Amino acid sequence: MKVPHSSLITFALLFIQLTSASGGKILVFPLDGSHWVNMKVLIEELHAKGHDVTVVRASDSWYISEKSPLYTSVTLTSPNGFEQNFETFLSRQLEIRLQGGHTSFWSRFWTRIEMERVVVDQFSQFHKGMSEMVLQMFEDENLMQSLHKAKYDMVLTDPGIGGGAMLARWLQVPLVFNVRWTIQGEAHLLMAPSPLSYIPFTATEFTDKMTFPQRITNVLSYILGMYTLSYITEPHYKPLVKKYFGPDVDYSTFFLDADIWLMRNDFIFEYPRPTMPNIVYMGGFQCKPPKPLPVDLEDFVQSSGDHGVIMMTLGTLVGTLPQHIAEEIAAAFAQLPQKVVWRYMGQKPANLGNNTLIVNWLPQNDLLGHPKTKVFVAHGGTNGVQEAIYHGVPVVGLPLFFDQPDNLSRIKAKGGAVIVDIAVLDRHIFAEALMAALYNSSYRENMQRLSRLHRDQPMKPLDQAVFWIEYVIRHKGARHLQTMSHKMSWFVYNSVDVIAALLTFVLLITFTFISIIRLLGKMIFIRKKVKHE
Amino acid sequence: MKVPHSSLITFALLFIQLTSASGGKILVFPLDGSHWVNMKVLIEELHAKGHDVTVVRASDSWYISEKSPLYTSVTLTSPNGFEQNFETFLSRQLEIRLQGGHTSFWSRFWTRIEMERVVVDQFSQFHKGMSEMVLQMFEDENLMQSLHKAKYDMVLTDPGIGGGAMLARWLQVPLVFNVRWTIQGEAHLLMAPSPLSYIPFTATEFTDKMTFPQRITNVLSYILGMYTLSYITEPHYKPLVKKYFGPDVDYSTFFLDADIWLMRNDFIFEYPRPTMPNIVYMGGFQCKPPKPLPVDLEDFVQSSGDHGVIMMTLGTLVGTLPQHIAEEIAAAFAQLPQKVVWRYMGQKPANLGNNTLIVNWLPQNDLLGHPKTKVFVAHGGTNGVQEAIYHGVPVVGLPLFFDQPDNLSRIKAKGGAVIVDIAVLDRHIFAEALMAALYNSSYRENMQRLSRLHRDQPMKPLDQAVFWIEYVIRHKGARHLQTMSHKMSWFVYNSVDVIAALLTFVLLITFTFISIIRLLGKMIFIRKKVKHE
Repeated sequence: MKVPHSSLITFALLFIQLTSASGGKILVFPLDGSHWVNMKVLIEELHAKGHDVTVVRASDSWYISEKSPLYTSVTLTSPNGFEQNFETFLSRQLEIRLQGGHTSFWSRFWTRIEMERVVVDQFSQFHKGMSEMVLQMFEDENLMQSLHKAKYDMVLTDPGIGGGAMLARWLQVPLVFNVRWTIQGEAHLLMAPSPLSYIPFTATEFTDKMTFPQRITNVLSYILGMYTLSYITEPHYKPLVKKYFGPDVDYSTFFLDADIWLMRNDFIFEYPRPTMPNIVYMGGFQCKPPKPLPVDLEDFVQSSGDHGVIMMTLGTLVGTLPQHIAEEIAAAFAQLPQKVVWRYMGQKPANLGNNTLIVNWLPQNDLLGHPKTKVFVAHGGTNGVQEAIYHGVPVVGLPLFFDQPDNLSRIKAKGGAVIVDIAVLDRHIFAEALMAALYNSSYRENMQRLSRLHRDQPMKPLDQAVFWIEYVIRHKGARHLQTMSHKMSWFVYNSVDVIAALLTFVLLITFTFISIIRLLGKMIFIRKKVKHE
Repeated sequence: MKVPHSSLITFALLFIQLTSASGGKILVFPLDGSHWVNMKVLIEELHAKGHDVTVVRASDSWYISEKSPLYTSVTLTSPNGFEQNFETFLSRQLEIRLQGGHTSFWSRFWTRIEMERVVVDQFSQFHKGMSEMVLQMFEDENLMQSLHKAKYDMVLTDPGIGGGAMLARWLQVPLVFNVRWTIQGEAHLLMAPSPLSYIPFTATEFTDKMTFPQRITNVLSYILGMYTLSYITEPHYKPLVKKYFGPDVDYSTFFLDADIWLMRNDFIFEYPRPTMPNIVYMGGFQCKPPKPLPVDLEDFVQSSGDHGVIMMTLGTLVGTLPQHIAEEIAAAFAQLPQKVVWRYMGQKPANLGNNTLIVNWLPQNDLLGHPKTKVFVAHGGTNGVQEAIYHGVPVVGLPLFFDQPDNLSRIKAKGGAVIVDIAVLDRHIFAEALMAALYNSSYRENMQRLSRLHRDQPMKPLDQAVFWIEYVIRHKGARHLQTMSHKMSWFVYNSVDVIAALLTFVLLITFTFISIIRLLGKMIFIRKKVKHE
């Protein structure tokens, strides 16, 4: 059989394409918990595209299993009892959160301070543990040699901690972030100009339209936050950085190494702000069209008729609430003609209405995308909020901690959410919030508008993320997209030296001018004096 | 015949899609000259996609014809003799440019000042003429009413002048820029944070790595430039703005109205810098794969053998050079084994080599994309430089004026260009530059690398541009991508009021503290005194 020449060329090109496409070796250094849920979406896609993924995990990881068809794992010995510590942390936070309501300004102020103290303490503990784990990794010469020999094309990491960035610098391979937060709060703050006049600092819950007192609070929060955040992290990593990267290296510089920042965010959700050439927005990359519900759940949902369904979940971390709050929630639900699907792990409230179905788990994406779903009662985690935008469902927010208040404040500012303070929640307040979200059509219209805008992109967020990961592999990095600002000291970056030089020059000229005038004046005076004498 | 239900639905959806896709009514307010070449590329694409385009043009336009299958035109009476004025302007500029070489620092300094003066004068004349044209447009009530009644979906304009932006505000329709320059120089300067420590000001020819004296020059150039640029434009438009938009409206605010900025730029060409959510980079959107050359030109090119071809053109504006310079260029070409295609409108140099073909016009894109083309001798206009990047051809630059020195300095900094000062050019200097670009492989390698990076985008720049234009039509604007900074005074934006308040507070505290200490001191002193007495 004679094969035509052009077919041979096509075949050869196809072969080259296939071999080059399957070439990526990606080392993933993830963050555990809900951050891993995000990272796994990327890993699934990279695996499907034929990339070879290795995941670094802690021996007592919550979520990251050792064996997976998606990746090979490298297990690090983790500091003891981390999981338990975190559970104590969460319940302590929730406890403080619930004390906040029905009290005086000062009481709330002190609650807030107390909460900050707990957060700072716990995060400091967390980073201490993490830094010990990373140190152990670097000390393990065999492991490090084997990672080096594996010749990875890049490191993909969540820069909530710096281990992945350090690993990339040590291995001298390109670095990609899957990021929303770094050690300095919201990720942009570290690397993009962030005028505090319209960019609300992390956890202030302000919008991009701030009053004068809010702008003062914003600046003070920034100063305090920068100090606290570096205090939480830097000291723990100092010995490690000094030993493996040199005495003059600053821990924060590792976070500027990334070739590409895949930001779990976009400007449908976030307020518009200055950005950088190497930031790629992939907010809502985990969202997908709904799959059909399980038959019994579908039957329950359909039984709601035209009233539709309310779904409630406070995320994977918080399964239960104090009994009296659960009862107030149940009472509010029971008043409504809607059906309710409530993911709740605690004791079933005694006053639960017939319309309310309590479940241990719910198919969040499929239920959010169901046409009968009218309102989403949520704690405001990034994933849930992005999914609410994607499906265009109004939110009743019960923010608990971390970024939840900030996330919900953004949806509220865009007219898609009602926020209820869980510390003051009772059946009346909660029912009122639900009624607003159900019957004031503006909430649904706004969420539907956000959904349309979010979905109208040149490329799907997940495809975009994978494109830029493969771009970094193809071009062995993307340093040409990093600004020079990363390599400048703060006083050069802010032209302090130039301003000082120009001011000195102006002062010198002024001084010389004044001196000459004075001298002339004196000479005239002397001449006059001489004349007079 | 029974039509299946699903087919009917498909048909209905198709019908809706088709009618909604053909709906766009776009009013284009372009800038003439080479800017129109760019705009026309967009219009061709929009026309092909079924949009209905109307173009506002001047009665004595150079390039914008009244009749076109692509658009309907609206013709404005243009101030007299503009074209001739511009030609005088160009030859005067070229004259000064050629005087710059072989002279002392001070002589060059004064040449530069003189050139600036000519540019400022001419640009001021240009904006005076333009403002008169725009005023005439606004005064023509019938025209304005008909534009209003036409219910355009958006205005597309080049904000080199403000007419388009004013029209959009008056018609209350969304606005899209096709932009590289505004009244404040490089377009980012008006709306994105631009730290002068690594962002070279327009026309400095600096890179993003500046020395201390360069940074001082950069800051001074910025201050001078901002003053000059607003002086060139604002006064001419003031009466017009006052009459049609109110006495408190600032001319520069029209340039912040744009929903989307389609920037003729990207970070392969430009130094990485802060950007904004509503900026879309479409640098090189006019570039396309080469078509075959005309037969005689192809024969000439092929006759070059392995030596390949040099192509030279100084753009549409400059067809001729002083005879002595043309002869030096011809002499340098004659020394080389390459074949040369030179677009030149002047008198044929007497010493022209056998290897050099002089043409009145050349198919720039097709010749640049020809595998035999080794070097591109160019003046450094944005279009040519972008095409050189797209095709990966090294550049020998002879910058003349406008943005040309800046454009070429960028390609030089990235290792793809040799720049020759035309004022000092002789056969040896020029031949040396050509030899470097021909035989030092790094120039070609760098341009090929830039070409690979430029072409590796999630979406082609032109498709991206059209996507965002249609996005603005679909969503009736994209104000949700504009930052709040546009609506703030400079002192609020820079938190001057907050800093002042905080400083006052600190001073008050300090003052109070010192007063108390003093008071206490006095009391103790008095008590002691009392004791002693």
